[in-house]
Amino acid sequence: MSDMPRSVRIHEEGPREGFQIESASIPTGRKIEFIEALAETGLHQIDCVSFVNPKKVPGMADAEQVIGGVRRREGVRYTGLWLNTRGLLRALETPVDVVGSIRVTASETFCQKNTGMNHEQTMQEQRRWLEIYREKGIGLEWGYVMTAFGCNYEGFIPTERVCLMVSQLLELAAEAGSRLHGVYLADTVGWGTPLSIERTIGAVRERWPDLPLALHLHDTRGTGLANAAAALKLGVGQFDTTCAGLGGCPFAAHKGAAGNICTEDFVFMCEEMGISTGLDLERLIDCAHMAEEIVGHPLPGKVLRAGSLKRFRDAIHAA
Amino acid sequence: MSDMPRSVRIHEEGPREGFQIESASIPTGRKIEFIEALAETGLHQIDCVSFVNPKKVPGMADAEQVIGGVRRREGVRYTGLWLNTRGLLRALETPVDVVGSIRVTASETFCQKNTGMNHEQTMQEQRRWLEIYREKGIGLEWGYVMTAFGCNYEGFIPTERVCLMVSQLLELAAEAGSRLHGVYLADTVGWGTPLSIERTIGAVRERWPDLPLALHLHDTRGTGLANAAAALKLGVGQFDTTCAGLGGCPFAAHKGAAGNICTEDFVFMCEEMGISTGLDLERLIDCAHMAEEIVGHPLPGKVLRAGSLKRFRDAIHAA
Repeated sequence: MSDMPRSVRIHEEGPREGFQIESASIPTGRKIEFIEALAETGLHQIDCVSFVNPKKVPGMADAEQVIGGVRRREGVRYTGLWLNTRGLLRALETPVDVVGSIRVTASETFCQKNTGMNHEQTMQEQRRWLEIYREKGIGLEWGYVMTAFGCNYEGFIPTERVCLMVSQLLELAAEAGSRLHGVYLADTVGWGTPLSIERTIGAVRERWPDLPLALHLHDTRGTGLANAAAALKLGVGQFDTTCAGLGGCPFAAHKGAAGNICTEDFVFMCEEMGISTGLDLERLIDCAHMAEEIVGHPLPGKVLRAGSLKRFRDAIHAA
Repeated sequence: MSDMPRSVRIHEEGPREGFQIESASIPTGRKIEFIEALAETGLHQIDCVSFVNPKKVPGMADAEQVIGGVRRREGVRYTGLWLNTRGLLRALETPVDVVGSIRVTASETFCQKNTGMNHEQTMQEQRRWLEIYREKGIGLEWGYVMTAFGCNYEGFIPTERVCLMVSQLLELAAEAGSRLHGVYLADTVGWGTPLSIERTIGAVRERWPDLPLALHLHDTRGTGLANAAAALKLGVGQFDTTCAGLGGCPFAAHKGAAGNICTEDFVFMCEEMGISTGLDLERLIDCAHMAEEIVGHPLPGKVLRAGSLKRFRDAIHAA
C-alpha cells in the first residue's frame, strides 16, 4: 500500500447531508449544538446548511438561523451548499464561509432533474459564480463532478465523460483567470465499486497526473469504505464524510436515503492503517450519538455502536 | 486489479449468526422458511444452526428442530457449527450436513473465554474431532483461525502468531493422514483493516503460496467490505457472509453485536466488478427483507434498502 497518503483531510458534511433529509421539526438550536460539538473534534471544515428552496427541502428552511447562530471556533470553516446563483446570493447574505467552488454533473439527465438546468446552462451558471467570486474576492478552491461513477437515469458513466467534465472545470477556472485546488469526484447515487473508483481515478490521473483529487462518496449500497480504501491506495488525500453516516437511515420511512461514508468509521479505518486524520475519534463518537439523539432514529455508522479499540487497548496496557 | 478472481464462493451464515443473537421467541417455522428461501438463491452452503449450550444461547435451543424441518434442495449443504466435541456429537444425531473442520484461535484469552479451553486443550479437542471424522467417513475440508486480525483481550495479533496457527492446523490434518482444502482467517471481533488483511494474507502466502485462503469477516466497525475488497484483490476466492448483515443490529439493545459482511452487499460489489458469484441478487434482497421481518428490527445491509441497479438499467434499456 505504498501510495497511501500519510494523512488525509476530512470535510464533515453531516449537518447539511443529514438535516436536509429530516423533517423540519428538528429545533434550530440542536443543529447548532451539533455543529459546535463537531468543531471540537479537530475538523477544519464543516458543511452546515444548504441554500435551497425551503418548499422542496423543509429541513433546510432555517439555514440562515443555523449558520447565524453557530459560535465560531478559530481555524474551522463553516460552509454551505448552493445549487444555483440564487442560493449563492442567499449564502453571501449570511455569515457562512463561502468557499469558491464550481460544479458540473456527468449525467445531463441527473443535472436537469437535480438543478433544473441542462449542461450548457450549468456551464453558464458556473461562469456567473466565478464572476461573483471575483467581485467578492472569494478564492476558488475545488471543482466538483457529480454522478462521476454512475447515474440512476443514464447508468454507468464512461471515464471519457468524467475526463470531459474535469477538462471543462479546468477551462472554466482558466477562463476566469483562476485555478482549481483540485477536483472532487462524487459518487452521488452509490454506483461506485473499488474497481470503478480505480478506473476513473486512473483515467483522470493519466491526463492530469498532478491534479489533486478528492472523493465525495454516498454509501448507498455498502461499498463506501471499500471505495474510499481503493482511493487511499491510489494516494487520494481528501474526502467528504458525514458523522454517524448522516443522510442515511436504516428505516423504510427514509427508503433510498443513503448517507455519505461515515466520518468516525472512516477515521477508524485510516488511523488503524497509520494514516493520520488529525481528528479525535472518541469525540466524533460522542457527536455521532448526539446526531442519533437529534434525528431520533438509528443512523448507519458502525463505530458509534461498537466503539473504537481504545478501551480494549487501555485495558491491555493496564494489565 | 489483476489478481481478482473470476468467481467467488459464498457460504451463507445468516441463519446461524443471526438467530443465535436473537431471543428464543422466533418461531422455528420462520427460521426454516428463511433457510428454504435462501436455498433458492443459488447458494451451495447455508450455515443453519449452532450446536451450543441452549442455556447460553437460547436462540439456538431449537437447533435440532430447525435442521430437522428444512426441506432439502439438491446441491445445497445445510451446515451447523459446534465449538466442542459434545456439540459435534449432537450434530451427528441430526440430518445436518457435517462438514469436517478444525478450529484454533490466535488469541488464547479469547479461546478460553469463548470455548472454556486453552490452546493446548483446543488442539487435543481438534484431534478428537479428526478421529470422529475418520470413524464416520466425514471428509476434512477447512481449518479456521479465529481472531486472526485482533482480539479485544489481547489486541493486535502478530502475523507470526497467525502463521503458527496455520502451521498447527496443517500439522493436525497431516497427523490424521488428511489434508485441508484451505484455511479460513476470521476477523472475529472486527479489528481488521484493508492493510492488516493485506499484511496477514501476505505473511501466510509467503510461507504457503498454494494454500487456498478464505475469510470470515465481522463488520463490527464498518470496514468489512473494504477488507473483503482488499482480499479479492489478492485473489481470495471464498467468503462467509450473512444475508442482510444478520448478526448485527443498529439498535442499542444489541449493543456490540455486529454481523458478518452482508451477503447481498458483497454480491452487489463482486458482480459490479465482474466477479461472478452464481447468486441471484434480487432473490437475496427478498430474503433480506424476510430476515428483517422475522427478527422484527432493521438489519445493517444496505442493498436491501437501496435495491440493486437492475431497475435503473432495465428502465435505461427500455427507453
